[in-house]
Amino acid sequence: MSEQPTIHILPTIHSPEELRKLPDGQLVQLCSELRQYIIDILSENPGHLAASLGTIELTVALHKVFQTPYDRILWDVGHQAYGHKILTGRRDVFHTLRKFGGISGFPNPSESEYDAFIAGHASNSISAALGMSVASALKEESRQVVAVIGDGAMTGGLAYEGLNNASINPNNLLIILNDNNMAIDDSVGALSQYLVNVTTSQAYNKVRYDAYLGLRKMKLISDRNRASILRFNNSLKALLTQQHNLFEGFSIRYFGPIDGHDVKQLIRVLNDIKDMQGPKLLHIKTKKGKGFRPAEESATEWHAPGKFDKETGRRILSDNLNQPQLYQDVFGHTLVELATEDERIVGVTPAMPTGCSMTYLMKTFPKRAFDVGIAEGHAVTFSAGLAKEGMIPFCNVYSSFMQRAYDNLIHDVALQKLHFVLCLDRSGLVGEDGATHHGIFDLAYLRPIPGLIIASPLNEWDLRNLMYTAYKVAATPFAIRYPRGKGEKTDWRNPFCELPVGKGKKLCEGNDLAVLSIGPIGNEVVKAIRMVGNERSVAHYDMIYLKPLDEALLHEAGRNFRHIITVENGVRTGGLGSAVAEFMADNGYTPRIQRLGIGDTFVEHGSIPELCRLCGIDAASIAQAILK
Amino acid sequence: MSEQPTIHILPTIHSPEELRKLPDGQLVQLCSELRQYIIDILSENPGHLAASLGTIELTVALHKVFQTPYDRILWDVGHQAYGHKILTGRRDVFHTLRKFGGISGFPNPSESEYDAFIAGHASNSISAALGMSVASALKEESRQVVAVIGDGAMTGGLAYEGLNNASINPNNLLIILNDNNMAIDDSVGALSQYLVNVTTSQAYNKVRYDAYLGLRKMKLISDRNRASILRFNNSLKALLTQQHNLFEGFSIRYFGPIDGHDVKQLIRVLNDIKDMQGPKLLHIKTKKGKGFRPAEESATEWHAPGKFDKETGRRILSDNLNQPQLYQDVFGHTLVELATEDERIVGVTPAMPTGCSMTYLMKTFPKRAFDVGIAEGHAVTFSAGLAKEGMIPFCNVYSSFMQRAYDNLIHDVALQKLHFVLCLDRSGLVGEDGATHHGIFDLAYLRPIPGLIIASPLNEWDLRNLMYTAYKVAATPFAIRYPRGKGEKTDWRNPFCELPVGKGKKLCEGNDLAVLSIGPIGNEVVKAIRMVGNERSVAHYDMIYLKPLDEALLHEAGRNFRHIITVENGVRTGGLGSAVAEFMADNGYTPRIQRLGIGDTFVEHGSIPELCRLCGIDAASIAQAILK
Repeated sequence: MSEQPTIHILPTIHSPEELRKLPDGQLVQLCSELRQYIIDILSENPGHLAASLGTIELTVALHKVFQTPYDRILWDVGHQAYGHKILTGRRDVFHTLRKFGGISGFPNPSESEYDAFIAGHASNSISAALGMSVASALKEESRQVVAVIGDGAMTGGLAYEGLNNASINPNNLLIILNDNNMAIDDSVGALSQYLVNVTTSQAYNKVRYDAYLGLRKMKLISDRNRASILRFNNSLKALLTQQHNLFEGFSIRYFGPIDGHDVKQLIRVLNDIKDMQGPKLLHIKTKKGKGFRPAEESATEWHAPGKFDKETGRRILSDNLNQPQLYQDVFGHTLVELATEDERIVGVTPAMPTGCSMTYLMKTFPKRAFDVGIAEGHAVTFSAGLAKEGMIPFCNVYSSFMQRAYDNLIHDVALQKLHFVLCLDRSGLVGEDGATHHGIFDLAYLRPIPGLIIASPLNEWDLRNLMYTAYKVAATPFAIRYPRGKGEKTDWRNPFCELPVGKGKKLCEGNDLAVLSIGPIGNEVVKAIRMVGNERSVAHYDMIYLKPLDEALLHEAGRNFRHIITVENGVRTGGLGSAVAEFMADNGYTPRIQRLGIGDTFVEHGSIPELCRLCGIDAASIAQAILK
Repeated sequence: MSEQPTIHILPTIHSPEELRKLPDGQLVQLCSELRQYIIDILSENPGHLAASLGTIELTVALHKVFQTPYDRILWDVGHQAYGHKILTGRRDVFHTLRKFGGISGFPNPSESEYDAFIAGHASNSISAALGMSVASALKEESRQVVAVIGDGAMTGGLAYEGLNNASINPNNLLIILNDNNMAIDDSVGALSQYLVNVTTSQAYNKVRYDAYLGLRKMKLISDRNRASILRFNNSLKALLTQQHNLFEGFSIRYFGPIDGHDVKQLIRVLNDIKDMQGPKLLHIKTKKGKGFRPAEESATEWHAPGKFDKETGRRILSDNLNQPQLYQDVFGHTLVELATEDERIVGVTPAMPTGCSMTYLMKTFPKRAFDVGIAEGHAVTFSAGLAKEGMIPFCNVYSSFMQRAYDNLIHDVALQKLHFVLCLDRSGLVGEDGATHHGIFDLAYLRPIPGLIIASPLNEWDLRNLMYTAYKVAATPFAIRYPRGKGEKTDWRNPFCELPVGKGKKLCEGNDLAVLSIGPIGNEVVKAIRMVGNERSVAHYDMIYLKPLDEALLHEAGRNFRHIITVENGVRTGGLGSAVAEFMADNGYTPRIQRLGIGDTFVEHGSIPELCRLCGIDAASIAQAILK
């Protein structure tokens, strides 16, 4: 399947310093070996394959040209950075990638001095690199700062804010636009390499000169306004390359596009431009999955393929015929069912149609499903606009990314009391993606928002019921959080039934103490109660709604129990436990309250069961708390 | 000072319907009257003068051309919308603007069907209008949707995300860029009107045609790729107008710039373009403060001038020589003092240098103060970049706007444990700006962030001490919230002293109950205790730090008191009261806890004392709670 070069140079490279000593003639071979190494390791240890295969040559070229770690490389969204990790002293631990106690799937400054900045959420590299570059200028250092940003990440508003500020202060920021044609629309995708050369061809220069002379004659250009001339050249270049000429508008010097898989050309160009003063952007064209044919042919499928056979190129899929579905699929199919029933229903997602399974809606009702790109703020405010005119948007955002649309939810949705359904996929601990991706703050940051209904289902049935309730009954801002991964049921397609807003359920009677939980973590409580057996008589309440709280249920718990345990897959500060503590204090109940949840610390990566154990919210920890 | 036209048409206009019936010949006079009316009313009733004077003609033209309220007009940041309010049935209540029980200073759909969308935070109009426009297309309505956005608001990432999505789905969105040259850099400001006409002149068309033929001959343009041709025209136009050609990059048809004070031309152009399909942008040039000379000459000073003499154009300033300073000025001067001491200190603000008094730093150390435009996310991530390279950024963001940079704080700052000082001006109830601007969620949304220090000073001395502590002692992410308006002290410039992190102060001994407060609202507690006199013996603790909590202090309170009252100028859900309830529950104390703060509702506008009374956090309400 892959050509399998013999790996003999790579093992000699323990740091970029050693890479820089390699003769140029060996760099192509090094790239092959690096690519093979990633394929070898990832076939056994699942990770993000396609993106990193696309940046092999860039990685080698950057470490060859720049004096890392003194010079800084910021990888926007770390999926691109596996080659970087391997070349910066982490080859031997690369197989621990994304594993509990192993290295992170993203650049992480606390892991290596070569990781210049945190990079889990897209689009932050330009702003961060600008800050670093301006700091260097203030300190009169000659440090180079390079931000490598994908075309997908470039759709985020934060990237634009960074671009918009890039030329204002002295800095020599270099932005590398890694254009693998995954996110920006077709007109950029239609770029072809041959057009690039036109920009330097005689023909191009002839047209440019003629036009320039014409404009000069009309006195529309003078030597005085050279900036205009530069811009004019850029405009022509943009036309010739059929490319959006966004960057020139920001007074950033634009170079490219060039072939991002030609390591020699990359090195030559980087050497040419690196000492130019002022912000500059190099546009490179790469192919996701480069060098591994199945991934080249279907980059989305091979974004994070799980284990695979590196010889045959076949993905190793576990037989899941009789297993529960993913929550995301239950969401996706249910949305289609509801949308079939009511044409006001639309779906909106910021660049996660596959991840949240809105693909089903896109297939069934293409005009009513909107992938807006990596643009969480816009996703929410755009949905608010749809809602204001009578549509019913189901806006699906990963919980940790929703942190980017907090104001939009408060200002554009809640203040206007719109009929808006926020679906937070990947809530709670998400596992291998680690600290940047855990959706553990949502209950706490959503709870203060006036008028927002906040719910989480115990299982797929209740996810469907909550979606139905949010659509049919509530007609108000309504957030539903549910986790990454599989649910509980094989027969998930239950008939819809309303879950009355602000009403929980008693799952289990008991006398000694009460456990109050919200969301699927309640299934761990069920197991815990089974583990405890007859040692304690435990009542278990599934709150379903964090807001409004089921006050009748809480009065019952407050009156009847001297010991209450709350369990949530989220931070202990501000979520369900806090709400219960507030309620008991407000109403003069004085039970002992144990709040189980995630402590006041960022949680690293690992499998979800490992992390639940670490945070004390797995069945065994809950059982222990019950017995204490 | 102003020409003072006789007002006789305006009183006959009770709705846009009536405006549309006016003969065109009377519209210039109507504009004069409207302008005069705003000046008259605002001279007595403080409000945002300059912006609304700049949009008089646009307002009249829009309501003339579009069938409001069926057609939708979204005013991005409502300061522009006073004329709109007056013409849409709110003339008689216009004098109640921003007053308790009166009309809002911003467009507010719950106030009028003519206010199409909420508009307190900048840059949301394009996303919202796009949603509304797409909804209309889905419903096969012929509704027009217009977003009016200032050049300042255009710097926000959300505006870019909106632009980037505008051409993807069928819609006939019209964006009006109200360019009053207040925020975008000089190259746009250098536009001059005569260049516009060039775009339609023969000369322009000749050049365009010649260039087009040349490119066709080279086979770089064919009839097949018409989009390129359109883009080429746009590029040329952009060159000729010396203007950044951002918008064409987004496949949005661009028109202008035209004079935004020529009501007839505006009407003509709007009529010409309104039925064109697809998204389009009309660029108009206006003057902030137009028609009132002092405001024209100094738009920043006259942004919100307070009361003024409309004849002499003199602002009526209260004599405040012996009064306390504004908190913002204490911040501004203190920042200069610290920056003088340590050259690593820099200041960053998103478009609020005057509002937060970072102007002092800009004057003293211009290279170390950064106004990044309306771009809160960038402000925080850019500061994080500065911090990563060893600078110590003081990033000042209004509390309610900080909701836009929540993820940046979690992901880019807290995860990396950077030495970063977040200064939240305008925290708590802000008064007349109302629901969109109250900084009441910050304590609740900041508290769950791991490792973040959160503090609020009782007075100016402690604001200075906290800034000093954050800079000198903590070296970790540190948030300081303080309110809008005046402090307590005339002698505010105390020598710096450290406020040990996580330590509160006992302000007053007592036996019957304890009041725990955070921030300047503690001064209301002091008054309340005075009001109560001998009826109750009240201990008063100023927590200073919400996080880390002063556990020794809380153990003392938990042990010694059966009744605890918490007081905060923020939402009751998730803030200090919650933290105290959590602590007491965690540690087995069972006092009665009363949590005073803002209830679970959006708070409208009014003076700060009125709103504090409304929310039960003024001295009288606190005294009542003490006695209950």
